[in-house]
Amino acid sequence: MRVSELSRASGIPLPTIKYYLREGLLHRGETTSPNQARYDESHLQRLRLVRALLEIGAMPVATVRHVLEAVDDPDLPVHWMLGRATHPLTVPPAEKDDDPAVAAALDEIDALVQRSGWHVSRGAPARRAAASVLVRLRALGQDGFANKLDDYARAAEQLAEADLRQLATLSGRDEVAEAALVGTVLGDALVSALRRMAQESFSSTQFPQAAAE
Amino acid sequence: MRVSELSRASGIPLPTIKYYLREGLLHRGETTSPNQARYDESHLQRLRLVRALLEIGAMPVATVRHVLEAVDDPDLPVHWMLGRATHPLTVPPAEKDDDPAVAAALDEIDALVQRSGWHVSRGAPARRAAASVLVRLRALGQDGFANKLDDYARAAEQLAEADLRQLATLSGRDEVAEAALVGTVLGDALVSALRRMAQESFSSTQFPQAAAE
Repeated sequence: MRVSELSRASGIPLPTIKYYLREGLLHRGETTSPNQARYDESHLQRLRLVRALLEIGAMPVATVRHVLEAVDDPDLPVHWMLGRATHPLTVPPAEKDDDPAVAAALDEIDALVQRSGWHVSRGAPARRAAASVLVRLRALGQDGFANKLDDYARAAEQLAEADLRQLATLSGRDEVAEAALVGTVLGDALVSALRRMAQESFSSTQFPQAAAE
Repeated sequence: MRVSELSRASGIPLPTIKYYLREGLLHRGETTSPNQARYDESHLQRLRLVRALLEIGAMPVATVRHVLEAVDDPDLPVHWMLGRATHPLTVPPAEKDDDPAVAAALDEIDALVQRSGWHVSRGAPARRAAASVLVRLRALGQDGFANKLDDYARAAEQLAEADLRQLATLSGRDEVAEAALVGTVLGDALVSALRRMAQESFSSTQFPQAAAE
């Protein structure tokens, strides 16, 4: 199909599609004449993916490009690709590494990893991100949440088990790569929404005076 | 303390503090002369909260103002406040309500709510957000993740139970309000980081050819 048909089929305005092409979020079509290219189902699928990352994942365009490059790089082994595709999703922490509070929180996270029997590389941004959240929780006087680390870790394990069980049903690097990315980004949004629903449900029982209104 | 001391104590530049004051993210200090105001520990605590929401929650300034208004409104009962404070955190879905795919996904979410024995209001944005993620997962051909809805719901329940158990230890509306907000926003970031760590750990077992490198 032509780019105008791609726009109609995807519901995405032509200037936006041209912007994605310029920014490298969408691969070029097959050139059929100096001013024309042909697009196919792979472009429609990529547009759906880009929109999901931008709209549900609320990811900046540069991050979307970065994770798609990892997904599209056939030389990255699946395990590495999973890491590279999902690492930039972790918000960079603001604290300095030599902050004693950060060092203490990293020790706490490493102890959790050991208790849990996990294998996590020391350079994993998620390790640093988890420590950063702990630092903030304690600075805000919310030690109660910080002390529930093991509860959260058990829930996170259940999520990761479901994620990996799903990835194990797939074959082919590209299929696994795209599923890992989608499962992580859209999965975070899904869990977040389900958690708010469960919170609403439980809090209406716990604070009944208000629920009656 | 004076505003310059507040800046030093918080590590936040003076122009940024003045911006937060203008935007209503930080309450005014006690006026001591036409050009001076006095700030206290409550301002330091609020600055820590604002920075956590902006940096860890990656929330836009307008959303931060909106949720802080709910937290600060003494007339909002705790149950409602929990809802109002956390509802804007749910990304507004892009699909139209009369989209048949959205209607089908909402039915799926409502069936999950019923199976789970949850009480969730039909107007809860999280209900709509969860449906929106389902729509995207199916459009992307990732039905495998969409079909794991119950697994994700069980993990979300565990998280919400830990959240509410922590809130139950607190007394006083303001304390519960701030804890609910922090627990939800920083809790999402914490779970997301722990999930990636568990994914990395499990995937190194599942894709050992890559882990060996």
